[in-house]
Amino acid sequence: MVALTIWNEYRHEREHDAVGEVYPDGIHATIAGALESDPERDLEIRTATLDEPDHGLPPDVLEKTDVLCWWGHEAHDEVADEVVARVQERVLEGMGLIVLHSAHFSKPFKRLMGTSCDLQYREDGGRERLWVVDPGHPIADGVAESFDLPRTEMYGEPFDVPEPDRLVFVSWFEGGEVFRSGCCYRRGKGRIFYFRPGHETYPIYEDENVGRVLRNAVDWASPTEGSPRTFGKRD
Amino acid sequence: MVALTIWNEYRHEREHDAVGEVYPDGIHATIAGALESDPERDLEIRTATLDEPDHGLPPDVLEKTDVLCWWGHEAHDEVADEVVARVQERVLEGMGLIVLHSAHFSKPFKRLMGTSCDLQYREDGGRERLWVVDPGHPIADGVAESFDLPRTEMYGEPFDVPEPDRLVFVSWFEGGEVFRSGCCYRRGKGRIFYFRPGHETYPIYEDENVGRVLRNAVDWASPTEGSPRTFGKRD
Amino acid sequence: MVALTIWNEYRHEREHDAVGEVYPDGIHATIAGALESDPERDLEIRTATLDEPDHGLPPDVLEKTDVLCWWGHEAHDEVADEVVARVQERVLEGMGLIVLHSAHFSKPFKRLMGTSCDLQYREDGGRERLWVVDPGHPIADGVAESFDLPRTEMYGEPFDVPEPDRLVFVSWFEGGEVFRSGCCYRRGKGRIFYFRPGHETYPIYEDENVGRVLRNAVDWASPTEGSPRTFGKRD
Amino acid sequence: MVALTIWNEYRHEREHDAVGEVYPDGIHATIAGALESDPERDLEIRTATLDEPDHGLPPDVLEKTDVLCWWGHEAHDEVADEVVARVQERVLEGMGLIVLHSAHFSKPFKRLMGTSCDLQYREDGGRERLWVVDPGHPIADGVAESFDLPRTEMYGEPFDVPEPDRLVFVSWFEGGEVFRSGCCYRRGKGRIFYFRPGHETYPIYEDENVGRVLRNAVDWASPTEGSPRTFGKRD
Repeated sequence: MVALTIWNEYRHEREHDAVGEVYPDGIHATIAGALESDPERDLEIRTATLDEPDHGLPPDVLEKTDVLCWWGHEAHDEVADEVVARVQERVLEGMGLIVLHSAHFSKPFKRLMGTSCDLQYREDGGRERLWVVDPGHPIADGVAESFDLPRTEMYGEPFDVPEPDRLVFVSWFEGGEVFRSGCCYRRGKGRIFYFRPGHETYPIYEDENVGRVLRNAVDWASPTEGSPRTFGKRD
Repeated sequence: MVALTIWNEYRHEREHDAVGEVYPDGIHATIAGALESDPERDLEIRTATLDEPDHGLPPDVLEKTDVLCWWGHEAHDEVADEVVARVQERVLEGMGLIVLHSAHFSKPFKRLMGTSCDLQYREDGGRERLWVVDPGHPIADGVAESFDLPRTEMYGEPFDVPEPDRLVFVSWFEGGEVFRSGCCYRRGKGRIFYFRPGHETYPIYEDENVGRVLRNAVDWASPTEGSPRTFGKRD
Repeated sequence: MVALTIWNEYRHEREHDAVGEVYPDGIHATIAGALESDPERDLEIRTATLDEPDHGLPPDVLEKTDVLCWWGHEAHDEVADEVVARVQERVLEGMGLIVLHSAHFSKPFKRLMGTSCDLQYREDGGRERLWVVDPGHPIADGVAESFDLPRTEMYGEPFDVPEPDRLVFVSWFEGGEVFRSGCCYRRGKGRIFYFRPGHETYPIYEDENVGRVLRNAVDWASPTEGSPRTFGKRD
Repeated sequence: MVALTIWNEYRHEREHDAVGEVYPDGIHATIAGALESDPERDLEIRTATLDEPDHGLPPDVLEKTDVLCWWGHEAHDEVADEVVARVQERVLEGMGLIVLHSAHFSKPFKRLMGTSCDLQYREDGGRERLWVVDPGHPIADGVAESFDLPRTEMYGEPFDVPEPDRLVFVSWFEGGEVFRSGCCYRRGKGRIFYFRPGHETYPIYEDENVGRVLRNAVDWASPTEGSPRTFGKRD
């Protein structure tokens, strides 16, 4: 059993009608739906949002979270530094972190990467094709060699992140750009997966291949016991 | 269920009394014992040796092998290139490969690494201490922060291998050397783990931590389905 | 002063009129021209071809070569294993190796990578755009953020190579594919750069950005003294 | 010409007699001496300390700094976050950063790594031997295969940093520990080198091999022009 917490900024859906129509219960509910759809995976799913106390992530919730999934877009700066520090600490202890789309600019991701995490973008509704460049990676399990998303916001290189430990997906965009769309990192004992697809008005998380990637990513990012880590003075 | 094939040169044990006393049924039998000792792991273990036809590795055996464990020492050159090519091809398709101790000089490892795989050594029976440098890695699951092997053959740097994808263990030797003792690689869809400990007269594979590492390595190296790989001309 | 040897199969140009017209003196001469064009770089350029004795690469030539540039396409199998072993050994000692386009299937590259080096391709003359994904890399020095090659042969993922140490370029193709087009590796003390662009009938090596990349790659791949490597028995 | 700024906390030397005796002009002066000793390298050296305004690192100084060398120990927390942000930004733009010994806990290094950077230590004055594990790396140029520091403070694994892009040195300690002592990273366009040796009372920076490593590291970390990085909206 994997305890998954899906965090969503949850502002767009309440403030913009166009977003609310696509995600009437919030993007977190749609992501939860994509993840629940596989009966072979035993997930306990919880959601948390920005406007809850502690952004829904008090210490005891993070403590029992195996994998945290993060969506944010327009209110990154409103996330309290104290909560960011707690997320970082839990990742270093082994909690998995899945960072989606515009959360490339979220505080937890930027703090764990140490870079600006900046990129190029264009909101043109063009076609994206994701290619698997690491077909042996567990996050690519059962995913097609390539798959198309018909209408997307473009994200383009350069993507200012550390060279990924493993690069799983590279995106091709109709307008002439490429992007490293699936990037794996380890920080401390924790596993981090950045996955580009997602949008507040295009229903990306209903795509079958995207759902498969998300479910694989939760499996991959789940903590392993590992070996003890003791720091400080030795006798 | 994981289908594991343990390959052993199986010459030392028959030719040298000192080796035969430590490993009366061959090192492969001792390794098999270390791997079988965990009831939670469902392994189907097969062994193969140099002097069998096809070195015990005809195509149908490799075809049904999930993870191949390789031990060799004095007769690397007698392994037929045709069998080496078959092993390489199966690794690229997803078969795991665990390379032990003096098999750093085995043909399959050298071919998959592309380097000389050379190192320094001294047979002095000194103490080795292995440190986990990647405590979040599944191969380190349940392994102590460090553990000692009281009598070993020293292997020292430089170790002429490609920079590992993940470095899990670094050894300290009483005589003043260090060694990258647990190195993870991916080649094609296959996972490769080089693990330094082992010897033809010191009973290394009876050590509890070593056994744990081997069992973890078999899990880690087991194939995942992944994504299709199609090569060649596209329409 | 860098001693550069440009190796060319040199068959196409003599056998096919269409190729001979684009490269009347052989592709090696065109590559040499692209490299000579920078007065700030002090290169001593030599060429070698398949049909010379020892393929133009006897031990003394390799011994004094700092960087070897390799082009081959239809006659990979005719390269003698002995010469391949010599090239590999020299790379491990520190000689740089630049592998161009269809030389992904050359024996030296396959031996140093340990994988099949296979890929997808389509000869359609479509447009390619190369994006710099590692703008801090010396091979990208002075290269535009992206640049176009108007008519190319497409190479697509999956590209069966080890995960590069550094990925410098990713190509976008008009027909919908992507490719890791600039891949850096270290093997032993030697530096290896695979660069995708090139073709036997499209005049790719006359492009200004391609020339810049080649000149940067020669600089980057040039040997450094490094630290001694001693292998074998220690007292 | 490389513009090098050596930053030193500069408290120990003024507050503790034992430290002041070893470093009468501050550790920064000793490091500067080690770097100046090579007539082939054209360095413009500047120093900066904690108690100067802006810690000696106002924007215009950072702007003209090619490589920043950082020493700190007991007052990491007194470094202003604003200066840390400026250092991080300059690294992402291409400035090199050399992080020495106890500066593993400095704010700039922790921010760029995204991890705790914690480790084990023991102040016992025991012997350290550094082994070159990447003999082809430019930072190891002209450095012995291994070299000893007779009296050191021990730093031991696990070292909570991201897996280095290249691991150049591994230390062996008399007391039984190992440590990844020379770690290379790229962040944005900038190069970062963490080097373990150093101490406030042992005269580590007067060692010849250590000096050679520092000089090589300055060369390696110097900015390259690279390719433009443009972020934000594309038309």
